[in-house]
Amino acid sequence: MALKVAARGNVPPFIVMDVMRAANEREAAGGDVLHLEVGQPGTPAPDAVLAAARRALDNHLIGYTDAMGLPGLRRRIARHYADWYDVDLDPRRVMVTTGSSAGFLLSFLAAFEPGDRVALAAPGYPAYRNILSALGVEPILLPAEAEHRFQPTPELLERLTAPPDGLIVASPSNPAGTMVGEAELTALADYCGAAGIRLISDEIYHGICFAQPGVTALSLRDDAVVINSFSKYFSMTGWRLGWMILPEDLVRPVECLAQNLFISAPCLSQIAGEAAFDCGAQLDGYVAAYARNRSLLLEALPKAGLDRLAPADGAFYIYADVAALTNDSEAFCRRMLAEIGVAATPGTDFDPERGHHFLRLSFAGREAEMAEAARRLQDWLPGSG
Amino acid sequence: MALKVAARGNVPPFIVMDVMRAANEREAAGGDVLHLEVGQPGTPAPDAVLAAARRALDNHLIGYTDAMGLPGLRRRIARHYADWYDVDLDPRRVMVTTGSSAGFLLSFLAAFEPGDRVALAAPGYPAYRNILSALGVEPILLPAEAEHRFQPTPELLERLTAPPDGLIVASPSNPAGTMVGEAELTALADYCGAAGIRLISDEIYHGICFAQPGVTALSLRDDAVVINSFSKYFSMTGWRLGWMILPEDLVRPVECLAQNLFISAPCLSQIAGEAAFDCGAQLDGYVAAYARNRSLLLEALPKAGLDRLAPADGAFYIYADVAALTNDSEAFCRRMLAEIGVAATPGTDFDPERGHHFLRLSFAGREAEMAEAARRLQDWLPGSG
Repeated sequence: MALKVAARGNVPPFIVMDVMRAANEREAAGGDVLHLEVGQPGTPAPDAVLAAARRALDNHLIGYTDAMGLPGLRRRIARHYADWYDVDLDPRRVMVTTGSSAGFLLSFLAAFEPGDRVALAAPGYPAYRNILSALGVEPILLPAEAEHRFQPTPELLERLTAPPDGLIVASPSNPAGTMVGEAELTALADYCGAAGIRLISDEIYHGICFAQPGVTALSLRDDAVVINSFSKYFSMTGWRLGWMILPEDLVRPVECLAQNLFISAPCLSQIAGEAAFDCGAQLDGYVAAYARNRSLLLEALPKAGLDRLAPADGAFYIYADVAALTNDSEAFCRRMLAEIGVAATPGTDFDPERGHHFLRLSFAGREAEMAEAARRLQDWLPGSG
Repeated sequence: MALKVAARGNVPPFIVMDVMRAANEREAAGGDVLHLEVGQPGTPAPDAVLAAARRALDNHLIGYTDAMGLPGLRRRIARHYADWYDVDLDPRRVMVTTGSSAGFLLSFLAAFEPGDRVALAAPGYPAYRNILSALGVEPILLPAEAEHRFQPTPELLERLTAPPDGLIVASPSNPAGTMVGEAELTALADYCGAAGIRLISDEIYHGICFAQPGVTALSLRDDAVVINSFSKYFSMTGWRLGWMILPEDLVRPVECLAQNLFISAPCLSQIAGEAAFDCGAQLDGYVAAYARNRSLLLEALPKAGLDRLAPADGAFYIYADVAALTNDSEAFCRRMLAEIGVAATPGTDFDPERGHHFLRLSFAGREAEMAEAARRLQDWLPGSG
């Protein structure tokens, strides 16, 4: 007899990964691809991280660590909050995670019961809603608007039939690349406080901000969960390393869950990752390169006819409204890859309702690649002139 | 207002990790500790793995991989099944995971609905039941008996009010260190087939077997899930690398879940891990050292009065019935650590019902440490002499 496959196993695929595979297959078949689909830096980990990893391979047994992470790394992360945000943080509240992915999984498990409702902006990172669904928590998509930088607002929360149990805010956001200002985040945090909503603040793109620095929810509410990562600013995606700042009431539950679900984050990544905090000069150089890519695309894309772009406040994404060109962004992306070798991610990954007329363009790659993609788009798109 | 902490956040701690912390604190305070509590090899990753990791740091961008893992590693794992088990395996069914921990999480999510029931032996690895509980699946503990090597049997399943939705079998097992023979595993697999039970076979200790090699469930049922790991035989705990062999019907659901929950397993570990399959000589040397430790303890422990020991067929554990000494194994372990510096894990971690009169002793450490622990136990225990 055929065995059961659980309904929660039927979460949608993370479409960007399927796009990456199609792009890789095109390359493997000898085609060229300009990678504006990948949400990861094209740069290596900072030199000091690589050096620390080499030393660790020579001198350390790469074993399990405490489930909360190496004590030195936890202290160094706490110090980062003093350095960057002028916030005093007890290292006991710092949990080292296997990428921000583990931070989402653990915090959702610990903070929300099956049947709970968690609000989040659409467009947004698709794994939020897919992880929530897999855990039996209902994602409530807030239809965020361009005039509010595709971010949640108290007004959008107010429109719900009942206050949700949680709210996820991402600033800078993926895919929109937009940020909430301090006033807007404070308004959201206050709303959460008054309504008993657990605030989950995704701050993984902090450090890659082009107008103003990111505001940490930690400075606004002690009961918020802050999620961060070494993957973006610190340029360490494949190392699978991130961290969470936990409210006191969630420290022990999350520790127990992590002991059982993960044992510990990768040890070599933890040892090497501590060095990343002293690599500001190299990493700010990476950010300067993103800034150049961003300027190049923000100037070139409108000339190609792509002129409805979300303000690219931070991260390395431009979210383009392509309603004038297509109502089927998945087919459009496939055609763009096939005809001019430019890989981009359809908006349907991020917004099931309205994503069919949006694209996400990532400018995390090399400048020459951005320039060539812009040239090809200008030739290819009908609206260019 | 105080925010909610979800009930499923209240999984029990993984007690061995708390024991490890107490042992580490004793060491930090200047006390000596003989580590018979840790379930991990005291040896480094094989030389060729370390060399491959050094090369990868020089030559590879350590980025995300495909969610299923690097294609070369998946092919190499498939070949391992030909080499070790004479089983032909399509690499498409191989999924590289972030340790076996991720394998359990992903397979439980994909195969079982909330409210489903999954049977497993007590004593057993505590994370099984804690992960199941966190996901809303009911763990059904089968009171496994010493005369059946603490393994599940069709008779134990038959006693349940209804067939469970899943069965976890671990051979060699943790904590008992016992194995099911081919006939017994076939009987269990046949029972599962007839009753529509999804078989999850934990084979992470294969390769560390002292009497006969482990039998893979893959050779018995195509609809079984096989979980394995680089942590034990391959001596790579902190690298957080494992794999699953998935039945065809679970490949795509697990891939989608993994894209969302993990993105990918650590890249450097994946690149380096492939070299582990060519390190048989070094790794078999590690196993020979475990075998010496095992012989030493199996001879010395009975002289200390610990003579009710499960047959140590494989893994690196001896599960000792200490009913003659204590009915509170947690207090007993605390006292043993405090008075003679020998760290061991109370059975309560593995068997909530009967673990209060069992201890798990790990012989993954150095031979001198085992010998000294045996000496101290002989002096300390009343039954010695």
